[in-house]
Amino acid sequence: MESAIPRHLESARTQQRRMPDGYTPPYPSFVARFKPAVQRVAMAYFGVQFRGAPPHAATDALGCIAAAFGAAQGPGHWDRASYVDEAGCTNVISIAYWDDPQRFQDWFDAQARDWASGSAALDGCGTFVEALKPAVARYETLFSADDRPEGIAVLADGMSGMVQEHAYWGGARDRIPLSQSERLEPAGTPRVVVEGKYRRVVPQDNLCLIRSGQDWADTPPEERRMYLQDVEPVLRKGMEFLRDEGLTVGCYANRYMRVLDPQGREADKSFGMSWWHSLAELERWAESHPTHLAIFGAAMKYLSALGPAAKLKLYHEVTVAAAGEQHFEYYGCHPRTGLLRAA
Amino acid sequence: MESAIPRHLESARTQQRRMPDGYTPPYPSFVARFKPAVQRVAMAYFGVQFRGAPPHAATDALGCIAAAFGAAQGPGHWDRASYVDEAGCTNVISIAYWDDPQRFQDWFDAQARDWASGSAALDGCGTFVEALKPAVARYETLFSADDRPEGIAVLADGMSGMVQEHAYWGGARDRIPLSQSERLEPAGTPRVVVEGKYRRVVPQDNLCLIRSGQDWADTPPEERRMYLQDVEPVLRKGMEFLRDEGLTVGCYANRYMRVLDPQGREADKSFGMSWWHSLAELERWAESHPTHLAIFGAAMKYLSALGPAAKLKLYHEVTVAAAGEQHFEYYGCHPRTGLLRAA
Repeated sequence: MESAIPRHLESARTQQRRMPDGYTPPYPSFVARFKPAVQRVAMAYFGVQFRGAPPHAATDALGCIAAAFGAAQGPGHWDRASYVDEAGCTNVISIAYWDDPQRFQDWFDAQARDWASGSAALDGCGTFVEALKPAVARYETLFSADDRPEGIAVLADGMSGMVQEHAYWGGARDRIPLSQSERLEPAGTPRVVVEGKYRRVVPQDNLCLIRSGQDWADTPPEERRMYLQDVEPVLRKGMEFLRDEGLTVGCYANRYMRVLDPQGREADKSFGMSWWHSLAELERWAESHPTHLAIFGAAMKYLSALGPAAKLKLYHEVTVAAAGEQHFEYYGCHPRTGLLRAA
Repeated sequence: MESAIPRHLESARTQQRRMPDGYTPPYPSFVARFKPAVQRVAMAYFGVQFRGAPPHAATDALGCIAAAFGAAQGPGHWDRASYVDEAGCTNVISIAYWDDPQRFQDWFDAQARDWASGSAALDGCGTFVEALKPAVARYETLFSADDRPEGIAVLADGMSGMVQEHAYWGGARDRIPLSQSERLEPAGTPRVVVEGKYRRVVPQDNLCLIRSGQDWADTPPEERRMYLQDVEPVLRKGMEFLRDEGLTVGCYANRYMRVLDPQGREADKSFGMSWWHSLAELERWAESHPTHLAIFGAAMKYLSALGPAAKLKLYHEVTVAAAGEQHFEYYGCHPRTGLLRAA
């Protein structure tokens, strides 16, 4: 058993962990371990938005960003997923990760600066970039299995052994190294600057992002049926609540996304990604809202019925970003896209 | 908004509350306020156990304890409830409260010393006494409405205004004044001493007791139907899990009890009462076990559908008792009764 916080990020505590030293979680979970040389990372969401069948401009924008990922200083890992938003638009998002934000910045300036600023001609399609460049003390990951990294964890040096800080409410906070000395409270309000079809967001401090996923590719038929019939509809309902009514609980935007494989087909993987006013509001929704309690209850019932035989893989990454670590721009998107809803 | 911990029980903190100072709960709750002169209380459970129809000895024992409650230095408040235990025995428990443990002790020595020690002839029925005499810093109460005290709160000076420490996991701990400076961790193992049909329990430190109740007497027909159809069966299932399999999660014994009115008829009130190895294990069950998540989810769904119009009243009291504050004796009871299961 080890702490989710790696040795080199231990600091003098002014905030207590919720659990005492002797706490033992009831089932194993793992976190991504980065080389101590990695001090910051970059997580960037490149979105293409359109209504109905994809127009040529959307296909072009997707091809363009994929090609850019292959250029010098491109991301160490990327994947793609899609969903239909509350306005009925399809959003296809290419999500890319770097373990060095300077490399991300150099790449972005060279390859993608124009992509979401309207320099390219876009007909019938919007584009957006939502990017964070958090210090490693500002995010945490969690995995139900140690052999299937996703998201930022693909760039890690490897997985931890079993960690102590999980399986209780407040675990995500306790896994974020900066929580040792800070409450991670939000400050300020995002502000939208409109320049014609181009909008950018002046960010707030300690904005929170979660990407929380499930992978049912390896499930045998009976477990797959249990997941798809007993758990997925409950998850979908909670994700739709956050998408449509999230602002009432501090969630700026939620996307329940289906991962696409390299051929653009739906993979047996999905994730929710959401932007929150604060980690505290994400915590409150998770631990007390009927929609999330239903999700958590269904998942716990499923996992306790199957025990260690369960082949469903779960993971998440949670980031609390300083204002200076955020970048949001939208071109030709409807005004309820992503962080535009926060203003 | 006020703290659940009264001014006169504030102490130097070495343990942090889970919530920051600015936290605002999403709905109101109240706690019992005792006069500062009250330093300890007594909570005593007098049980009568039998199989099938009540034998004369059981009726006599119930009459006897009720008469004793009326004697000098008797309890300030008592009620009665019954349930069928995991061995198929009916248990009728008379629960009495004092706001001065010395008065309880004097009363007990004069009126009830023989009651559970086999001095009375008991044919076809067992009796037991489970009593705590906690310092006021060792328990907390919580009420959804400020006009319906139950349990120890009936002896209080009154109810607080809206308190801050509730509506999140860990709230009960944060409301117990001693949690300001102690983790309330258990020590030792209860030990049963058998003397023929008489058994007593040598207690452990920081044993935890919860009494958690619901009162649907005031609900109009549609709300009553929602409670009885949507919530109660889920509650019952969780209570049966704790009764039958509680030892796997740190619960020594659980009783899901129906309150009896003075004529012995079932009132529209019930409560669960359970003995736990530790407050921490009660917290873990509550916040992570599928059976309690289902209860909590059903209750939250119900309460959020009804909003402030809900007429269902909820309350609980949670105590963490030092070894010297506990008293357990059983006469002629089966060996899985109450704390006898703890050994």
